[in-house]
Amino acid sequence: MATAPSVSYSMTVRLEVPASGTAVSQLTTAVESHGGSVTGLDVTASGHEKLRIDVTIAATSTAHADEIVEQLRTIEGVVLGKVSDRTFLMHLGGKIEMAAKHPIRNRDDLSMIYTPGVARVCMAIAENPEDARRLTIKRNTVAVVTDGSAVLGLGNIGPMAAMPVMEGKAALFKRFADIDAWPICLDTQDTDEIVAIVKAIAPGFAGINLEDISAPRCFEIEARLREALDIPVFHDDQHGTAIVVLAALTNALRVVGKGIGDVRVVMSGAGAAGTAILKLLIAAGVKHAVVADIHGVVHAGREDLVDAPADSPLRWIADNTNPEGVTGTLKQAVVGADVFIGVSAPNLLGAEDVAAMAEDSIVFALANPDPEVDPAAARQTAAVVATGRSDFPNQINNVLVFPGVFRGLLDAQSRTVNTEMMLAAASALADVVTEDELNPNYIIPSVFNDKVAGAVAGAVRTAAKNAGAGTASNGR
Amino acid sequence: MATAPSVSYSMTVRLEVPASGTAVSQLTTAVESHGGSVTGLDVTASGHEKLRIDVTIAATSTAHADEIVEQLRTIEGVVLGKVSDRTFLMHLGGKIEMAAKHPIRNRDDLSMIYTPGVARVCMAIAENPEDARRLTIKRNTVAVVTDGSAVLGLGNIGPMAAMPVMEGKAALFKRFADIDAWPICLDTQDTDEIVAIVKAIAPGFAGINLEDISAPRCFEIEARLREALDIPVFHDDQHGTAIVVLAALTNALRVVGKGIGDVRVVMSGAGAAGTAILKLLIAAGVKHAVVADIHGVVHAGREDLVDAPADSPLRWIADNTNPEGVTGTLKQAVVGADVFIGVSAPNLLGAEDVAAMAEDSIVFALANPDPEVDPAAARQTAAVVATGRSDFPNQINNVLVFPGVFRGLLDAQSRTVNTEMMLAAASALADVVTEDELNPNYIIPSVFNDKVAGAVAGAVRTAAKNAGAGTASNGR
Repeated sequence: MATAPSVSYSMTVRLEVPASGTAVSQLTTAVESHGGSVTGLDVTASGHEKLRIDVTIAATSTAHADEIVEQLRTIEGVVLGKVSDRTFLMHLGGKIEMAAKHPIRNRDDLSMIYTPGVARVCMAIAENPEDARRLTIKRNTVAVVTDGSAVLGLGNIGPMAAMPVMEGKAALFKRFADIDAWPICLDTQDTDEIVAIVKAIAPGFAGINLEDISAPRCFEIEARLREALDIPVFHDDQHGTAIVVLAALTNALRVVGKGIGDVRVVMSGAGAAGTAILKLLIAAGVKHAVVADIHGVVHAGREDLVDAPADSPLRWIADNTNPEGVTGTLKQAVVGADVFIGVSAPNLLGAEDVAAMAEDSIVFALANPDPEVDPAAARQTAAVVATGRSDFPNQINNVLVFPGVFRGLLDAQSRTVNTEMMLAAASALADVVTEDELNPNYIIPSVFNDKVAGAVAGAVRTAAKNAGAGTASNGR
Repeated sequence: MATAPSVSYSMTVRLEVPASGTAVSQLTTAVESHGGSVTGLDVTASGHEKLRIDVTIAATSTAHADEIVEQLRTIEGVVLGKVSDRTFLMHLGGKIEMAAKHPIRNRDDLSMIYTPGVARVCMAIAENPEDARRLTIKRNTVAVVTDGSAVLGLGNIGPMAAMPVMEGKAALFKRFADIDAWPICLDTQDTDEIVAIVKAIAPGFAGINLEDISAPRCFEIEARLREALDIPVFHDDQHGTAIVVLAALTNALRVVGKGIGDVRVVMSGAGAAGTAILKLLIAAGVKHAVVADIHGVVHAGREDLVDAPADSPLRWIADNTNPEGVTGTLKQAVVGADVFIGVSAPNLLGAEDVAAMAEDSIVFALANPDPEVDPAAARQTAAVVATGRSDFPNQINNVLVFPGVFRGLLDAQSRTVNTEMMLAAASALADVVTEDELNPNYIIPSVFNDKVAGAVAGAVRTAAKNAGAGTASNGR
């Protein structure tokens, strides 16, 4: 797949150019003839002899950007100035900040916001802890917690290097659901320690969003925290992904006119996302699922599973999928399948594998940035194709889910998040795409569709209230 | 001491009043004749028959406020509506929020703030962790950490009830020093756990402000965290108080013309604040100090100290104060003393005790809300009197210190905070009061004096750079 120039590899180059002659007109030509794209050209100073120009260029990679800059240097009369990487510029000093809601102008303000007035508010909460959800930021605050062990596709880069992702996540929470999220990046990867720490910091938060924690530790951490805490704990890499996949599958099945209980689903990947997707699909009615991992199709008789402990994630998969006892490779398993869902590794399948699937097949190739199968190749025979990429139709993006899910949980003052709430979220997200809009290239709305967060939030809020998961209903 | 009506006990009462007649004019009279104060009177609706009026009233206590409302009810023709407590209104939903620095308007913004662009920033930090101070909020962020064990004078009210104070503290950090602080309220009071948790959350912060943690645990927690972390750890109740006391004492000694090495200082209170004040005063040159606690003057031969472990805080006091071996009660110790500093309990001394001090005595009675001695009574013979209260001259308030101290530490990218930096902060704070301004009723500037934070920050930054405590200088 050729990659188009992207603003995420974007830089601004300051140039001095002779006022007369053809240098200015050569700039754009030089950039474009080398595969870049000029997204802005501002004259920031002008004189009789010279112009100062800031040219903003999108490239396909860092190396490509460097190459383009070198090209500009060769234009006669051009003097190269500062080169600024726009993505890095946006990160300078971090992307989020704390803001006070009220001004502190004088002693009166101080005496209400801080001492001595604040003491009465503290005592009200000491007498009735539930008031913390009314009188403090606990009402609207989520901790975005990571240990940096599985950051994006970058691997175990640690808590400090994970910060830009967690700040970005916090910014998205605000942008799409008006939630105040704060990153908590932990300098430990010990399961017991992470559980103890998150339990301890919980008083100031109304929800915990676990993020980029590697499997299988993420399963245990989430399960133990859900057991221990009276606020919802949601591992977005698992459940956010599962919800958006279920929503997309719901609409894809509408496109091809197949029922969720009838289709044969083959999944590639048994990590955090794969396991969560599988569980939610089963809860939604999928009856025929087969999962493959790096060792091939998971079945109860597979060598590495015979002695696996009863509570191991793979064991769960073996016990709950593959009723026909399929064995062999992923490629063998997809023959005749209705649905392929990959959350694994690049380029595992070819066009011929997709062609061997059932009529009107559905392919979700979600490995990022390089999918399990080239989406253009898959689209030759598959009826519906989705990826995790923003440069193809049908992008499966968690941003569609986590802001609305937490908005709903917070509005319901929910103490938990359960499968019913997730099913409700997926259903609401699918329904944002109207019958008139639905087609093979539009099974899932854009992240900037302003109906998404509200629809998801409303469905989750209702499901939480129906489940009696809120504070008022169970009287704690 | 009679207490004046305070805005921290302030409420807004909605009333319906007949348009004609004297009811309106009776409102203010009714409030003031019962010791309240009308701070606002807004007609929010008016007709031929009736007015709707919002009256804002300051009282001295909650009971007093209730009493005044009852009084309004008795005025003929007045119908009482909603009564709103202004302090509680300011706390609804909490006092702080998270804000994103950049808008997320479209996919280009998203691709730089979040995926895929953010991955390059993560990798830059993974390769050079120091870049986190440039490319993330670590540059300007402080964690305000408490376990809720010693909140204001309210005692061990727990982490959730401590939230309003910590939010207020965060708001003050922003207001006075443009620092992004976030409250971390811990659901554990175990020293080992607190140390482990703060160590683990440190990657996302440039400094730790410990707050309202009870003694003696606060000493060990702070010491162990300072040892473990490469960011400054500052327990404001100890060191913030110590710095402002030293600054105030410096100026009080200027007023009376005595030298810090010559005066006899008697302190009441050997808790967190008392111990920190003592240590900083000794570092600043105090040679003759005596400390009393609830059992009387601390001396090496005191029964409870003979077997105290060598590293106990009281043992340290016994070894480093009271060279003359004074014994007995606080009242006995203050006879002939030049300086009294109380951080203990209300009403321990009378006017006669202050009268028995040396000529031109200095009295800092800092117990809150009720000082160790009535400041008005003390002022009859003492040359300089200071309290922690906002309704007397010379308020000793930590807000004068912690914002500037952290601003200086963050600007220097300091990894530590040490005694030299604290001495520099105290000296800078004292010097904000010019020679022309200095007098017995103005030894310390107002918290709203806009020179304070900058002066303190500058002094701390210079001290940190001189100590080579920053990131650049020690090359870590």
